[in-house]
Amino acid sequence: MLKKIIGVMGPGSSASKTDLKNAYEIGAFCAKKGWVTLTGGRNKGVMNEALKGAKENNGLTIGVLPTDEKELFSDFLDIPIITNMSSGRNYINVLSSDIVIVCGIDSGTSSEISLAIKPGKKIILIGLYEEANTFYKKLAPEQILCVKNSKEAIDFLEKENDILRTLK
Amino acid sequence: MLKKIIGVMGPGSSASKTDLKNAYEIGAFCAKKGWVTLTGGRNKGVMNEALKGAKENNGLTIGVLPTDEKELFSDFLDIPIITNMSSGRNYINVLSSDIVIVCGIDSGTSSEISLAIKPGKKIILIGLYEEANTFYKKLAPEQILCVKNSKEAIDFLEKENDILRTLK
Amino acid sequence: MLKKIIGVMGPGSSASKTDLKNAYEIGAFCAKKGWVTLTGGRNKGVMNEALKGAKENNGLTIGVLPTDEKELFSDFLDIPIITNMSSGRNYINVLSSDIVIVCGIDSGTSSEISLAIKPGKKIILIGLYEEANTFYKKLAPEQILCVKNSKEAIDFLEKENDILRTLK
Amino acid sequence: MLKKIIGVMGPGSSASKTDLKNAYEIGAFCAKKGWVTLTGGRNKGVMNEALKGAKENNGLTIGVLPTDEKELFSDFLDIPIITNMSSGRNYINVLSSDIVIVCGIDSGTSSEISLAIKPGKKIILIGLYEEANTFYKKLAPEQILCVKNSKEAIDFLEKENDILRTLK
Repeated sequence: MLKKIIGVMGPGSSASKTDLKNAYEIGAFCAKKGWVTLTGGRNKGVMNEALKGAKENNGLTIGVLPTDEKELFSDFLDIPIITNMSSGRNYINVLSSDIVIVCGIDSGTSSEISLAIKPGKKIILIGLYEEANTFYKKLAPEQILCVKNSKEAIDFLEKENDILRTLK
Repeated sequence: MLKKIIGVMGPGSSASKTDLKNAYEIGAFCAKKGWVTLTGGRNKGVMNEALKGAKENNGLTIGVLPTDEKELFSDFLDIPIITNMSSGRNYINVLSSDIVIVCGIDSGTSSEISLAIKPGKKIILIGLYEEANTFYKKLAPEQILCVKNSKEAIDFLEKENDILRTLK
Repeated sequence: MLKKIIGVMGPGSSASKTDLKNAYEIGAFCAKKGWVTLTGGRNKGVMNEALKGAKENNGLTIGVLPTDEKELFSDFLDIPIITNMSSGRNYINVLSSDIVIVCGIDSGTSSEISLAIKPGKKIILIGLYEEANTFYKKLAPEQILCVKNSKEAIDFLEKENDILRTLK
Repeated sequence: MLKKIIGVMGPGSSASKTDLKNAYEIGAFCAKKGWVTLTGGRNKGVMNEALKGAKENNGLTIGVLPTDEKELFSDFLDIPIITNMSSGRNYINVLSSDIVIVCGIDSGTSSEISLAIKPGKKIILIGLYEEANTFYKKLAPEQILCVKNSKEAIDFLEKENDILRTLK
């Protein structure tokens, strides 16, 4: 049986404290639901915090890594998928996610949002600045949901569980 | 000697007439300068028009193609680079371009803009709607230049030729 | 904690009955050891049988898939990693495996053996024809182990467990 | 009009003098025929010599590069296609070639031969050791041609020009 895989995307070194808190809480929530948390797998920023939140709640964690350099791997990783594709792996991140949750934004994250649109993924943007929300809502109004914090995202995931099931 | 390669990116089927005209003119300009025009290589939208503009002015043209289906190739293509990577090839498009010129926007194009930022590419956005300009200027203020039409982009390319040379 | 990931590679439609039996037994063994079984994820040949062997013994299974076409997915898959890269995903298969076990050979499998060599993977060839064993032993004598059947491969995996641990 | 693209593959640092000579002569021949020479683009081994042979005879040269590190680029390169995909780019090398000419063998080259088989490419192996010829002839008898030196490969390319035209 295919497990449900939730992709959590967001900045590495430029993540804000709020981004990190949101990522941790989404990871923790996924673990409690029995869902898999998937990120870019590195030991920094949103990637690391989402995996940490999942791992500290006994969830299963996957990282789709840009390189095979072990010292860059998150400590909260169960399954490293190694691509040696640098940012090319961003497309695999979103293709492999049933839904994409975004905590903060930088250029890598923005590529992930964009690449998730054509394959029809639902994308939840948490706490992004207004210009980003406006841009992405205009680009893909039916796929983008903008929320203020991880609680709102979790409420959506809870309520929309049935819809979510059909998204895969 | 490495040739100068100008990447021209933009929507496929959703390109506007203005996007197509801009793309054609950029391709034509590149050909006259002796530069190579590189696009996503398909026979539609901005990809096709930029190659057409280049080819009708005796330029050299490259397409980095998502699949090996010949019937999708532009007729104005000299060199097909075949990836079988679907949208994963968008990263190769921008990595292989000395500068990225964007004519209009859809989700694929927006992934190319985003993926061009981390490798430090200069990106010229031609005639995008305000929300896109605002978003990308905020995301990468030193790399994004917003202009109204192909003439302004060409003026920039002419004037900034020396800077451009150092960008590779 | 990184889980141990065993890659099982081999032909799709051209797999022999013996190849399929070997694949099933390797998958079953990995599951019993608590290791993850990783294959190319499709619903045919060695890919499918290794996942089946693992799943029927309560193992965790990963497929690194060439496309997002659900009807091609193995029924014994827990975690689909979707690449849309066609055979380009063969490199990710072997990079993500701590050790590569090969059950039979076709052109795709032979690319996986070759791609596993430079990253230093240990590769066990089970029941390949003489010409293949000879070629690969000559190409990478220190990484290739040729055995006759899955039992010999399993004996190696049992005995070399400590060495295997250091391979990651 | 699509140009004819000849892929020349072979070892980097482990190339023999004969491999290098063969590669140079194939590149030179392609240039004289007006064909494009495509290699892995680095400044060593067969990749570099084939580009050198082409360039010194006024041919057009393409390199599909594993990384964007300029200091690794061949000096005989017109068009760098940058992938940041490490050995993952081997698949693009062969997909983009109308025919694949192999001068010597190492693990990277053997992955290219294998990856060229499924897309139906014709592959000429020049001067490989017996075990490699035997293995690949068995793997894909209708696609593999084994010859002793570049002269035999060139004779084939001359005579089979019409067949070659249909291979694209």
